[in-house]
Amino acid sequence: MEGPRRLLLISNSTLHGGGYLGHCQQHIQSFLGQKVKRVLFIPYALHDRDAYACTAREKFESLGYGLDSIHESCDPVEAVKKSEAIFIGGGNTFRLLKALYDNSLIHEIRKRVLEDGIPYMGSSAGTNVATISINTTNDMPIVYPPSLKALGLVPFNINPHYLDPDVKRTHMGETREERIRQYHEEPNTPPVLLENHLKCFHLHQGLREGTMLLVEGDKATLQGVTGARLFLRGKKPTEHEPGTDFSFLLTDSNLLNP
Amino acid sequence: MEGPRRLLLISNSTLHGGGYLGHCQQHIQSFLGQKVKRVLFIPYALHDRDAYACTAREKFESLGYGLDSIHESCDPVEAVKKSEAIFIGGGNTFRLLKALYDNSLIHEIRKRVLEDGIPYMGSSAGTNVATISINTTNDMPIVYPPSLKALGLVPFNINPHYLDPDVKRTHMGETREERIRQYHEEPNTPPVLLENHLKCFHLHQGLREGTMLLVEGDKATLQGVTGARLFLRGKKPTEHEPGTDFSFLLTDSNLLNP
Ligand SMILES: [Ca+2]
Ligand SMILES: [Ca+2]
Repeated sequence: MEGPRRLLLISNSTLHGGGYLGHCQQHIQSFLGQKVKRVLFIPYALHDRDAYACTAREKFESLGYGLDSIHESCDPVEAVKKSEAIFIGGGNTFRLLKALYDNSLIHEIRKRVLEDGIPYMGSSAGTNVATISINTTNDMPIVYPPSLKALGLVPFNINPHYLDPDVKRTHMGETREERIRQYHEEPNTPPVLLENHLKCFHLHQGLREGTMLLVEGDKATLQGVTGARLFLRGKKPTEHEPGTDFSFLLTDSNLLNP
Repeated sequence: MEGPRRLLLISNSTLHGGGYLGHCQQHIQSFLGQKVKRVLFIPYALHDRDAYACTAREKFESLGYGLDSIHESCDPVEAVKKSEAIFIGGGNTFRLLKALYDNSLIHEIRKRVLEDGIPYMGSSAGTNVATISINTTNDMPIVYPPSLKALGLVPFNINPHYLDPDVKRTHMGETREERIRQYHEEPNTPPVLLENHLKCFHLHQGLREGTMLLVEGDKATLQGVTGARLFLRGKKPTEHEPGTDFSFLLTDSNLLNP
């Protein structure tokens, strides 16, 4: 064991014309630090992997890191084994998870992150697959993965880029909150953390940052400035400001699931 | 074979305070006619099946039909075998499809509708499961069904209660259109019909009807007043007014999937 689990789980890859990962680049730099030289990028969530790798490479090189895209490697499992840090980008969560299974990467990524302690960064769908399952993704099930179980780097669910229902809008589908409530009607369902809560968002004009969850060992902290909402099965959802210590979500998951 | 396939695929169960199925009750009556006496209701898409059956029973009795809810039957397959007409209500599409598989109903419903010609009505999730697959549902994958393949009563997908992206809104997830496009990035994906298109909707103030697709044998017609948008793989989406003849979607599916 080289170090404890280190995760940076970002809600969105872009915010309001800030450019790819522009709103969180300082968090990325302080998370990866000086020791990491190259990042292994996993572009499976988008169809055009070449274009996606170019976008990511440009950004990471501008921050002083080399980037290898796993789809350019002949042996994806070997690429994970050799990686110093992993970044999984957003797109469609079903497509991403299916490709992780198809390429036999679930076990190896878990091992590298949880046992070897290499840093893991996810954005949007890459944050979804870092959690216990993709049961709370907003994405369309365009493909059928062999399971909804994901990397399980944390024992709860995250719903990235949460927006409050716009009450003025003609609304005919379920609201996001109703959808989470339906999830918690199922037995033994874990907590769901909704990032990037719009109510808070509107309080901060000119905002350039979304929400991130920083996990270091057994400590989890809400970062960014937009706040989050926490849903526990059978309880009323609660609002949380940036800086909130969410470490209890890492350990008390049984307690939280009556 | 008692008669040809007869389907009424409704986008939404309620519209703007019109009450449960209020906006489409005349369509229901003319679809079911005088010969049908009792409808078999399938409430699997919602958690509280008793309450759901009460709501549906009240409505159908007011229209002159008896209603049996399948969850009150000891033998669901037998209930389908004996049914005169089937109505599957909305809720969560994943939960619904899983329950159809868990209760071994897929084969029997297909047989009753496609071979015996009993009328099938679906609303929202009940419309999704009538199609070739649930790949284009808007719902959250709160449970994992054994497949995304659905009843296949028609050879294409429907996305019910479609709303155009509100461009004024802070939008951070994919739009519905982007999600459909991602589906069509996958090989051999069928057409997607989006019901209840908001642009048309806004043209009709005080509207009480959504969109319905009426299928009678090899003829499919768009009903209601809100229109729909059609997505074919590799083509630009097209707008369609109520009354559009969509029969070509029932037969030309190979032609439409290059
Ligand atoms: Ca996404
Ligand atoms: Ca639904």
